[in-house]
Amino acid sequence: MTPEAHDVQDLAQLREAYAELKARGLALDLTRGKPSAEQLDFANPLLGLPAPDYRAADGEDVRNYGNLAGITDIRAIWAELLELPVAQVLAGDSSSLNMQFDLVSWAMQFGTVDSPRPWHEEPVLKWLCPVPGYDRHFSITEHFGIEMIPVPLTGDGPDMDVVERLVASDPQIKGMWNVPVFSNPTGVTYSAETVRRLAQMPAAAADFRLVWDNAYMVHTLTEEFPANHDIVGMCAEAGHPNRPWVFASTSKITFAGSGVAFFASSPDNIADYTRHASIRGIGPNKVNQLAHAKFFGDAAGVREQMRRHAGSLAPKFDLVLRILEERLGGRDVATWTTPAGGYFISLDVVDGTARRVIELAKEAGIALTGPGSSFPLKRDPDDRNIRLAPSLPPLEELAEAMDGVATCVLLAAAEQRAG
Amino acid sequence: MTPEAHDVQDLAQLREAYAELKARGLALDLTRGKPSAEQLDFANPLLGLPAPDYRAADGEDVRNYGNLAGITDIRAIWAELLELPVAQVLAGDSSSLNMQFDLVSWAMQFGTVDSPRPWHEEPVLKWLCPVPGYDRHFSITEHFGIEMIPVPLTGDGPDMDVVERLVASDPQIKGMWNVPVFSNPTGVTYSAETVRRLAQMPAAAADFRLVWDNAYMVHTLTEEFPANHDIVGMCAEAGHPNRPWVFASTSKITFAGSGVAFFASSPDNIADYTRHASIRGIGPNKVNQLAHAKFFGDAAGVREQMRRHAGSLAPKFDLVLRILEERLGGRDVATWTTPAGGYFISLDVVDGTARRVIELAKEAGIALTGPGSSFPLKRDPDDRNIRLAPSLPPLEELAEAMDGVATCVLLAAAEQRAG
Repeated sequence: MTPEAHDVQDLAQLREAYAELKARGLALDLTRGKPSAEQLDFANPLLGLPAPDYRAADGEDVRNYGNLAGITDIRAIWAELLELPVAQVLAGDSSSLNMQFDLVSWAMQFGTVDSPRPWHEEPVLKWLCPVPGYDRHFSITEHFGIEMIPVPLTGDGPDMDVVERLVASDPQIKGMWNVPVFSNPTGVTYSAETVRRLAQMPAAAADFRLVWDNAYMVHTLTEEFPANHDIVGMCAEAGHPNRPWVFASTSKITFAGSGVAFFASSPDNIADYTRHASIRGIGPNKVNQLAHAKFFGDAAGVREQMRRHAGSLAPKFDLVLRILEERLGGRDVATWTTPAGGYFISLDVVDGTARRVIELAKEAGIALTGPGSSFPLKRDPDDRNIRLAPSLPPLEELAEAMDGVATCVLLAAAEQRAG
Repeated sequence: MTPEAHDVQDLAQLREAYAELKARGLALDLTRGKPSAEQLDFANPLLGLPAPDYRAADGEDVRNYGNLAGITDIRAIWAELLELPVAQVLAGDSSSLNMQFDLVSWAMQFGTVDSPRPWHEEPVLKWLCPVPGYDRHFSITEHFGIEMIPVPLTGDGPDMDVVERLVASDPQIKGMWNVPVFSNPTGVTYSAETVRRLAQMPAAAADFRLVWDNAYMVHTLTEEFPANHDIVGMCAEAGHPNRPWVFASTSKITFAGSGVAFFASSPDNIADYTRHASIRGIGPNKVNQLAHAKFFGDAAGVREQMRRHAGSLAPKFDLVLRILEERLGGRDVATWTTPAGGYFISLDVVDGTARRVIELAKEAGIALTGPGSSFPLKRDPDDRNIRLAPSLPPLEELAEAMDGVATCVLLAAAEQRAG
């Protein structure tokens, strides 16, 4: 049998398998990194907290106005996790994405503490985007009309030779998105060396900012927690104290969208944030902050909660990886990441077929994240990348969905080979 | 005794009274419209809600991501109070001030749906500010470099002859602050005729906006609730559907700063808000929204809660008014408002003495809101106005503080007469 005949037989078999898949009438969703009901249950005691208390440890009545920085009870826990002084860690409302948007927005409007002028007065604005990366980050820079420069993500983080060269030479590059731990969607964690180079590299723009979205800082799938690299301290030591904007939140620790978000940075950046935030409002939801402080107790309580999440998530990741290996391994049709934490697996299929795979899956009732969504402007130059989000469905549904996805990957590859 | 001799005797007596006041070593605070502990207690069941539930009426799991508009359970209650379709009422996080700041910020950056260009590209921006008014409103326009034009507030709302003339003739006037019900600090409620004229008046700027901060819409001190004037419907009928930005919140109904805020407007404005908010984040704190929906039950539950607040607040307002009348009545040294709702009493002292009164009170341990704070840029042209916030202290402290304030008002007046 010639290779061509083999492919044609494959294609016929795969079309049959796909027809069977479609006939099952599935309705499964792997699109977003949403926690499952089982994971949300781990935080159910929060539904009844902070009752009966309403006083912070220092006696403040959290039911009343005030305290723009958030209550120390919860700030101290994240300060410990981030290994920073409490004064450099603010606790806000529920969303660190809100804070990231606001900081970019305020820099556009007013400039940062190091800006010669508001960013909107710059002739052009550019931003480094490690790819594949987080779609909602790229949406923010797109919204503000900032030109996005993709930078390849390696196993150690962004390609630092490229980053250093660009940042040193172009004063219009004002910032860079980073998910330094268990990155969305690859699961890559920046190495200590990468972090050091990001902190130390010269920047042509005095107001260059590292958005340091530490969304998955404690989101391990193993017995090990990732090392914390103190980007704030390292930047200060390197003479760039205001470079990092650090974020964390409990969104994937307690309740998604109803947790507590944190902003950590240099004293000058904290003061500048406060200067705008104090006009924007009076203070964050401190009742929710106290509820969270009571729920966790301390930093060890946070880690304990993350062990419960790992207990729920790790079997799902294992299942996805097992199915990928069984169905696609050794066939030269796909590669994928094997993350030790976070919420995603990044799947690279045959070049030029990712869009087709997503379309096939959709027609078979399996919703995948849209094509190119891990790239600026949704432009995946190789039409190769698919983000898999295994957290939401129960195991049986996940197995069914992933088996279907594998069929779609194989069919799209065979279609392409067949021309 | 000549009038001068009488004044000199008064001054000596008042100096003695003031010395006694100082000797008491008070530490009392009438600065901000904070609810008292007694009022906050009315909402204590919220500390344990929404447990054990986490599902909205439509079955949505509020613990997870999604639903940028907020859950219908709470939106429907405020839609009923505002007499608007649910689709035109969004429920957000805790602060309507946050939403007001964001809308101004996004108009600066991107323009509104009716703007020919982003506001920051306008040669100059102007804003109408009824005075006395809410200091945090004025801080927002000041922060964005918007020129503020004071407009006198009458017993029926802003002087509409002035407003109509300015808005019709100057295309750089892009907006106007309004607290239409129980206004901060006067307690004035806009008349039906004022609301109608604001909705119908021609505006030189197509993107002229009425910020309609209905912060005290149900905050009565009597048996009566104020009439609701549907500014959204009236503006639509007059051909200016996108003119009003309407806000409300539960901050002074449940917990200050930890409640639920609402934004209501035209379908086009709601869509435009959503366009930006969907980039800023994934959705509001729905757990808190469900807790509030369960706490209130329905619109009647909101009114019931406000009757409890009135029971706590009305005696404080009565006390302040009684002391003002007893100590200052008929002496030609002060006038004051007698509000039927809201959080403040506006006190006008002898022209040129407000700053002195506030200073004297401070030295005697009585903190009053800073001079001019109810005016743009804190410039009270007559140095006359003092905002009294009677809500926070218990009755005995309030009596002591107000008696002290009266002494300071009399002393400052006598000092001025004495030259």
